[in-house]
Amino acid sequence: MPASAIRKLVPLSDAAESAGVKVYHLNVGAPDIQSPACAIEGVSKRLETMHHLSYTNSAGLMQLRKDFIEKYYKKVGIDIEVSELLVDVAGSEAFSVAMQIVADRGDEIIVVEPFYTNYQTFAFLNGITLKAVHTDIRAGFAVPDISEFEKLVTPRTKAVLLCNPCNPSGKLFSKEEMLAIGDFCVRHNLFLISDEVYREFCYSEEPHFSAMFIPGAEQNVILADSISKRYNLCGARIGCLISHNKDVMSAALKFAQSRLCPPVLGQYAALGALDTPFSYFDEVREEYIRRRDFAIAALNAMPGVFTPTPMGAFYTVAELPVDSAEAFIKWMLTEFRMDGETVMITPAASFYKTPGEGLRQARIAYVLEVPELEKAMKILAAALQAYPGRLNA
Amino acid sequence: MPASAIRKLVPLSDAAESAGVKVYHLNVGAPDIQSPACAIEGVSKRLETMHHLSYTNSAGLMQLRKDFIEKYYKKVGIDIEVSELLVDVAGSEAFSVAMQIVADRGDEIIVVEPFYTNYQTFAFLNGITLKAVHTDIRAGFAVPDISEFEKLVTPRTKAVLLCNPCNPSGKLFSKEEMLAIGDFCVRHNLFLISDEVYREFCYSEEPHFSAMFIPGAEQNVILADSISKRYNLCGARIGCLISHNKDVMSAALKFAQSRLCPPVLGQYAALGALDTPFSYFDEVREEYIRRRDFAIAALNAMPGVFTPTPMGAFYTVAELPVDSAEAFIKWMLTEFRMDGETVMITPAASFYKTPGEGLRQARIAYVLEVPELEKAMKILAAALQAYPGRLNA
Repeated sequence: MPASAIRKLVPLSDAAESAGVKVYHLNVGAPDIQSPACAIEGVSKRLETMHHLSYTNSAGLMQLRKDFIEKYYKKVGIDIEVSELLVDVAGSEAFSVAMQIVADRGDEIIVVEPFYTNYQTFAFLNGITLKAVHTDIRAGFAVPDISEFEKLVTPRTKAVLLCNPCNPSGKLFSKEEMLAIGDFCVRHNLFLISDEVYREFCYSEEPHFSAMFIPGAEQNVILADSISKRYNLCGARIGCLISHNKDVMSAALKFAQSRLCPPVLGQYAALGALDTPFSYFDEVREEYIRRRDFAIAALNAMPGVFTPTPMGAFYTVAELPVDSAEAFIKWMLTEFRMDGETVMITPAASFYKTPGEGLRQARIAYVLEVPELEKAMKILAAALQAYPGRLNA
Repeated sequence: MPASAIRKLVPLSDAAESAGVKVYHLNVGAPDIQSPACAIEGVSKRLETMHHLSYTNSAGLMQLRKDFIEKYYKKVGIDIEVSELLVDVAGSEAFSVAMQIVADRGDEIIVVEPFYTNYQTFAFLNGITLKAVHTDIRAGFAVPDISEFEKLVTPRTKAVLLCNPCNPSGKLFSKEEMLAIGDFCVRHNLFLISDEVYREFCYSEEPHFSAMFIPGAEQNVILADSISKRYNLCGARIGCLISHNKDVMSAALKFAQSRLCPPVLGQYAALGALDTPFSYFDEVREEYIRRRDFAIAALNAMPGVFTPTPMGAFYTVAELPVDSAEAFIKWMLTEFRMDGETVMITPAASFYKTPGEGLRQARIAYVLEVPELEKAMKILAAALQAYPGRLNA
């Protein structure tokens, strides 16, 4: 089993930090935004009268499932019944279970590359082959003509899996792109697993177009969702698997039963979080637009660097003027220091399935406040100038 | 994928409860004992100053890993380094990851039957074949001669997996039994996955003999552990995977990284729980001995019922004078009422791999206080008398 590309450089940054170096972590999607107070109170209130902490139903607390629907999904236009929503151990469990439900060993799932690297991890664990539709950084990661999807279909193809807005690219799928992919799935009788954990982080005029909105694809779509990013409760480990398809929900419940129940204290945090006013998302969104605008301008001002402007999530993929992004990042962590500081970003090659793609690209998470980002970008610019493996234009 | 045998009757009990019937739940290991106050305070203290809830290291909080060792494992004689312990999403993740580490698809793992039913679930999910060494209820589930293990060895055999004390049987493995199994594993170069989540629930004079104590098996043993039962924090979803084997720990870390991190609020509960004085276990143990003694006597007093005296955990397996334990339990949930009350227990057939075994047996969790247990046992006795499928002696 391959090590997580996002986390395998952690020992190098740990070593740097142990040696007293300040590392700006633009490598993980762990933002510094405050969680809504009601989420934290949701837990502390329960603790006051807690006798012991027992299991909940495998599908999650009934009140939480109802509240998810009434207080969140209905408000964003997603119309579901309680039986169509199951509480999972964050988005990770939701999409990995969805993959296991739709595909047996030897089956194939079409992904849009660059994609979240753990899709590959769970495909590997379950003997599923990912087939990638390539999207190009210079085209802003636009979804290509649907004929590129058609080319990949075999008798073993079971689903399309995408992340919208996309980790790592920040790509926001347009309504037209989602409709085209939905139509493709329906025509070929494929599932559409839509990972929408960044739904509230969209920077376009148009609202987010969920896979749940695709007419006629009601039996095809499986939504993987999470409270981690939405309320900055990554550590709660609470998400949802949602589908109108009864067979999918019945299979999902069996998987849920095998791990007994989702974390209960996290479920309390979710219960509390659902009372967050939607204005919280607006404020967070404004903050991320500030950070994005700063980071994208700073990156594109560095000679030889190119990144498109992401319209969602809080990541961007940038092409760097280096021999190898991974070698460059290792070098930053082990050798490059500017006033005792350095920067950690993530090599992008593992976000691609097509061999040779993304080797000179990195994912940058703009999860720090602008003044911190400013320092990090200065260090990154200086590192790119000093790096021995720099490519000349 | 098969539904969990423990949970598949839940809809019937839900229906009974919705209709106003009181159901005594002797079907799940969800005890009513109070969690230590320090566990709950461990969470509430953290909440007071919490800004947001971010990920921890995939292997768990470093402080928690250290505390597990200093405050618990050292005290029970298990001598490990921090690198030999990883925080998991409860025992379920620990043993399922251990199974995936030691066995590829088509490989075999030897289990001692009756065994915890989710071993079969995870074996199924990963294409692993379980081979069962049978233990007999009339022999008190004693481990048979090691030649019974030898018979099952093939080139695909990778491990022995056992639960000590055992869910569902309450069987406590003796030091001699553990040494014999350890010797067998070393001779055949097999892993020994030891699920010891009920370690503090032992009712013998002898202390619990952990697989970690088997001399010469240091590289073979993988310990799956959990705080769920020990501190009555089942909902926290926190456990440990422990091994002296570096390759095992390195593989376990890759699995851990794929699900990002264990539930963080649960980790805080664990940090607090580790300050629990060991006298807490003594008190809990005394309470369970009372419950066990009452339940076992009551069961064996019912005509045609036989159960051995379990020396660990809080379950027993009983043979019932019925055509089918599953049919009897369904009948209790749907038809039998005594003053508007009934009892739920678990059919034992799915705890066996050998076809035809356990069909007339049920697992009974003695997780209620004696006065409640008394009522439940009265109802069970009456149900056995009234059941149309009762067998005559």
